Amino acid sequence: MNLIGKSGIAVRKVRRADPAAVAQLAKFGVATIHEAMGRTGLLAPYLRPIYKGARVCGTAVTALGHPGDNWMLHVAAETLQDGDVVVFAVSAPDDHGFFGELLATSFRARGGLGLIIDAGVRDISELGEMRFPVWSKAVHAKGTIKATIGSVNTPVMCAGALVNPGDVIVGDDDGVVVVPAAKAAEVARASQAREDKEAATRARLKSGELGLDIYDMRGKLEAAGLKYFDELDQVK
Amino acid sequence: MNLIGKSGIAVRKVRRADPAAVAQLAKFGVATIHEAMGRTGLLAPYLRPIYKGARVCGTAVTALGHPGDNWMLHVAAETLQDGDVVVFAVSAPDDHGFFGELLATSFRARGGLGLIIDAGVRDISELGEMRFPVWSKAVHAKGTIKATIGSVNTPVMCAGALVNPGDVIVGDDDGVVVVPAAKAAEVARASQAREDKEAATRARLKSGELGLDIYDMRGKLEAAGLKYFDELDQVK
Amino acid sequence: MNLIGKSGIAVRKVRRADPAAVAQLAKFGVATIHEAMGRTGLLAPYLRPIYKGARVCGTAVTALGHPGDNWMLHVAAETLQDGDVVVFAVSAPDDHGFFGELLATSFRARGGLGLIIDAGVRDISELGEMRFPVWSKAVHAKGTIKATIGSVNTPVMCAGALVNPGDVIVGDDDGVVVVPAAKAAEVARASQAREDKEAATRARLKSGELGLDIYDMRGKLEAAGLKYFDELDQVK
Amino acid sequence: MNLIGKSGIAVRKVRRADPAAVAQLAKFGVATIHEAMGRTGLLAPYLRPIYKGARVCGTAVTALGHPGDNWMLHVAAETLQDGDVVVFAVSAPDDHGFFGELLATSFRARGGLGLIIDAGVRDISELGEMRFPVWSKAVHAKGTIKATIGSVNTPVMCAGALVNPGDVIVGDDDGVVVVPAAKAAEVARASQAREDKEAATRARLKSGELGLDIYDMRGKLEAAGLKYFDELDQVK
Amino acid sequence: MNLIGKSGIAVRKVRRADPAAVAQLAKFGVATIHEAMGRTGLLAPYLRPIYKGARVCGTAVTALGHPGDNWMLHVAAETLQDGDVVVFAVSAPDDHGFFGELLATSFRARGGLGLIIDAGVRDISELGEMRFPVWSKAVHAKGTIKATIGSVNTPVMCAGALVNPGDVIVGDDDGVVVVPAAKAAEVARASQAREDKEAATRARLKSGELGLDIYDMRGKLEAAGLKYFDELDQVK
Amino acid sequence: MNLIGKSGIAVRKVRRADPAAVAQLAKFGVATIHEAMGRTGLLAPYLRPIYKGARVCGTAVTALGHPGDNWMLHVAAETLQDGDVVVFAVSAPDDHGFFGELLATSFRARGGLGLIIDAGVRDISELGEMRFPVWSKAVHAKGTIKATIGSVNTPVMCAGALVNPGDVIVGDDDGVVVVPAAKAAEVARASQAREDKEAATRARLKSGELGLDIYDMRGKLEAAGLKYFDELDQVK
Repeated sequence: MNLIGKSGIAVRKVRRADPAAVAQLAKFGVATIHEAMGRTGLLAPYLRPIYKGARVCGTAVTALGHPGDNWMLHVAAETLQDGDVVVFAVSAPDDHGFFGELLATSFRARGGLGLIIDAGVRDISELGEMRFPVWSKAVHAKGTIKATIGSVNTPVMCAGALVNPGDVIVGDDDGVVVVPAAKAAEVARASQAREDKEAATRARLKSGELGLDIYDMRGKLEAAGLKYFDELDQVK
Repeated sequence: MNLIGKSGIAVRKVRRADPAAVAQLAKFGVATIHEAMGRTGLLAPYLRPIYKGARVCGTAVTALGHPGDNWMLHVAAETLQDGDVVVFAVSAPDDHGFFGELLATSFRARGGLGLIIDAGVRDISELGEMRFPVWSKAVHAKGTIKATIGSVNTPVMCAGALVNPGDVIVGDDDGVVVVPAAKAAEVARASQAREDKEAATRARLKSGELGLDIYDMRGKLEAAGLKYFDELDQVK
Repeated sequence: MNLIGKSGIAVRKVRRADPAAVAQLAKFGVATIHEAMGRTGLLAPYLRPIYKGARVCGTAVTALGHPGDNWMLHVAAETLQDGDVVVFAVSAPDDHGFFGELLATSFRARGGLGLIIDAGVRDISELGEMRFPVWSKAVHAKGTIKATIGSVNTPVMCAGALVNPGDVIVGDDDGVVVVPAAKAAEVARASQAREDKEAATRARLKSGELGLDIYDMRGKLEAAGLKYFDELDQVK
Repeated sequence: MNLIGKSGIAVRKVRRADPAAVAQLAKFGVATIHEAMGRTGLLAPYLRPIYKGARVCGTAVTALGHPGDNWMLHVAAETLQDGDVVVFAVSAPDDHGFFGELLATSFRARGGLGLIIDAGVRDISELGEMRFPVWSKAVHAKGTIKATIGSVNTPVMCAGALVNPGDVIVGDDDGVVVVPAAKAAEVARASQAREDKEAATRARLKSGELGLDIYDMRGKLEAAGLKYFDELDQVK
Repeated sequence: MNLIGKSGIAVRKVRRADPAAVAQLAKFGVATIHEAMGRTGLLAPYLRPIYKGARVCGTAVTALGHPGDNWMLHVAAETLQDGDVVVFAVSAPDDHGFFGELLATSFRARGGLGLIIDAGVRDISELGEMRFPVWSKAVHAKGTIKATIGSVNTPVMCAGALVNPGDVIVGDDDGVVVVPAAKAAEVARASQAREDKEAATRARLKSGELGLDIYDMRGKLEAAGLKYFDELDQVK
Repeated sequence: MNLIGKSGIAVRKVRRADPAAVAQLAKFGVATIHEAMGRTGLLAPYLRPIYKGARVCGTAVTALGHPGDNWMLHVAAETLQDGDVVVFAVSAPDDHGFFGELLATSFRARGGLGLIIDAGVRDISELGEMRFPVWSKAVHAKGTIKATIGSVNTPVMCAGALVNPGDVIVGDDDGVVVVPAAKAAEVARASQAREDKEAATRARLKSGELGLDIYDMRGKLEAAGLKYFDELDQVK
């Protein structure tokens, strides 16, 4: 049954990704992981970290709320375990400040590592001092009410990506990526392979070798029709 | 008489909020003050500080200008007193860099603490080094002219909020809030009460207690129709 | 012949601005240079530096690519000399992450100082650690392909400004400005003149003198119709 | 007392602008009226009519609601009289479809002429067939709830303009303007004067006379420094 | 297996929703159907019809392409049957004109009724004359290439909604809604029930009865704290 | 000398494109012409016609103004000849209503066919009744002043494209394209060739033939790696 966008459901237990795989993924950046997944899994780039150098890797506890209503973040708090990251979606675009340092205190006390929120956040000075990482669509002091129920730990559409409870969430200065729980180990391996390969390339580039040669591009460029000229004035 | 948006008026004296109340308000964050005012008074969240950790609390000297014309900022400078914050509105949306370090030097010399501007600003490196806080809609190097008169110290509509000269302006990383001068003391008291209450809640949340229990939400959630399931698979 | 927007051309040699003039321009901020050019030359303010305090001054190596395709950045790398800044335009609006730390390593190894890109960038944590300055329209982890040819070292329209290969590019926290190669020395002189004049003004402003008096504005304001009132209540 | 943005108040009686003045204003376009008011009173241009040729002139019944909640539109309906236009503001930016043909049927039955809404609308085909004019920020099929109270017939900030109950609202293809009730007759007269003057100018322009001569601009352009050249090649 | 966003797959046969249910759904508007589905299924409101009065109801043939590349629309054409609507998603935000009257001619010849495209379209005059309905994010004359493969008839994320091949797509002036194939009959019944109920309400509203009474809101408003005043001046 | 963005110059005579070539170009749509120019020349798609079916083809008289100042439109009027289209650029982004029916009356009396404006326009009902076509960035009733000089008949950057006085401007429902005067005849021929070719393709598509076969795409798709499956369930 399709539960995306459906309100009224709170699920207590989450089948989280394998902790060993999560620990492996924690070593890689968002760009690397998204590449290792065949360029899938990115949340929309309008989600930005509230401080430079923010970084998180954990398992998703999901919540769906409504504009201006953060009630479900409290329901989500009860289902948190060590190593979780809350992923909060809203049923319609909204920039209220759904989350601040009080809820961050609660999340951290229950094991929560951070928050991904397709809406606004406030108290960002305090959150920065706590080093509680949040990726949000907006910073807005405007407070929310607790009047309408949404859902907790059902699949959500957050910033254009589908997130299932238990999936791995990685965030850094480049943005946020979601790794399906079942693929965590495989993606960690592919990420490592990519990093290994890049290390070799990096050394060659650092020595002044060109990508044109390393990746053998010259013939392809010529085949594609690129014409070289010595001077701009020589073009036709 | 409705003076909002009206050009051609410069008022020399401002009835500023009570200094003791301003000093009280300086202790609180924008989110707290906005809550203490019944969730009113916020300027639009597109106003962002030019550096992290920017903070200001002072009394408003207001100015209204026109697109690409910063003449009125010079007129405003003459009316500044110690502890003032300039609030600058534009008669139509505009992103020019109306303000830079020269004007900041002038404002500071006359007692100005900072600037709220519904337009662009430049020299932000220098302003950051001076620790002169500015909340602006844009950063833009483009300069302005001095050709058309606006007004100074009349009521202005700035970033969607009505600001009267003498009102208290508080800015931090979360944004900007305006407190009517006559309400400054009352809002300071309500802010303190809110902080006191939050301190108690924070301690409970930090110990792992849940908002669900602290705020007695369980019955209300059930009444609202929230259904709990142990596993996602059990939903229908 | 109009080569703006035309694909398929790679030019090897660039007629760069005079190095002495470039070195002079390196002393000034973007706002000052744009003023010294009669308020021309600014790229659109949506280009933002990836870290605070980023700063670059160098000669333009230009590239034109297509949405989601960063092939031409590799072609551009081969034409880099010490002191160059790559200016990358895209044939249609696009936010992919065209550039990361591998390409930055390559650019730096070939003499490149930085990048201006009318699109997205990734690996911004690593680029920040390298202190490799980039001004971009977006931060996005999404990777690109290498399938369609564009051009290198032809005139490009980047963020609303025309950039010719060899022009001087200056970037700082305020944005980016392009100085035509032939005007570099003249603009450097005008920038110095402006700074000298501003130093004198700054000292007067710092002492509390008003712009109203320094710039002799009082008569002009009166002529323009500005009416002074002592109190707001006195306005009609 | 400042009631802008305050929830919980419903006012039954509205002091409407003088009907004769409203009837006079109905003859003029939005641009003319805004000019006649000294270029004030316009609502933000993101409000667009749902069909070409929409036009309304009436007295404001105001309502303030919350994101995704259209309850107050029903409260407002009870206070409608013949010739009223509902002006609906939301406490935070929101694009839900707050209004459709059922509510339009109700408004019309009670005397309502149209709606100005700083949010979304739906059923626009049906509303177009009914010729019920609406100016909105968005078209969106998404429905709203009725859970949180706002206010009715208090002053509201709608699309950046202050609207008091009883003010005159005029909307056409160019947008929406609000005329303070007390100024309705004066603005109607000034609008007529402007139209009379424009009729004379129009005739002269139609005959081929130039604005340069009609408005006597040639000397001013020269004084401002405009230089004429016969050919582009002659410029410097 | 999760195929959303995956390139390289073309599926020939689509399990389309029951034609009788599709025919039933064709009688209802987008707003009604979305309500009948518990307020789910809407595509983002930035998709707008290219002409007023556009309307479509059919079964989805899906395609995924890349920025500036419309190759997959040709692959999709081969799988069209009478009554299909093409739903086109792009792997990254893009506004190119992917579709014009030639492709519309092809689609129509193969049985296609219309297009939903999360990108740009061109030839809109000609498409309007053909009465070939398109809902798009942009109108843009810029043409596309055919260089990179995507997928056809796999699940796609289009304008924020998940669309499976064979689902029912309904579009009108209010936007676009997707009905899962398996739920088409049920949603059609619920839509009819809603319309029946609305017809009765409409008649009462038309006679001047108020929603306050029809929906029995007066007690709830009082319980929620709404205070009535006769005059605005009486408010505290 | 680079005159783009430079104020203070008014050029009386324009070297217009050959009238025969302009007449040829008038037969083609914007999309066709842009294709015939190698996909160059389009102005940004945010320029939209003020009424459906608007269409213009003429020679450019250019003007550069400043935010909120339409003075140069009057200077431009004097240089109009039969068959001209005014192209108006602004020195910084701005949405004021620079143009209305009075100026349209003047332009038409002097031979002007239409207006392309990278800013706002007003009186759109009246302009629609006059069938005076305008492509603008915004519709806004807000009026402008006449205080600062710009330029007339110098090269301008309008909506991201370079327009020289005398170039051919074509506008339709798809947007606006500029054809360099010297290329007008060549582009008209290439447009005709494209239309002839499309006519043949259209007939084949109308008969049900597929683009896949007409353009011989099947082998290329296979080479690019597209895999066909009969059913979605068969995909791995």
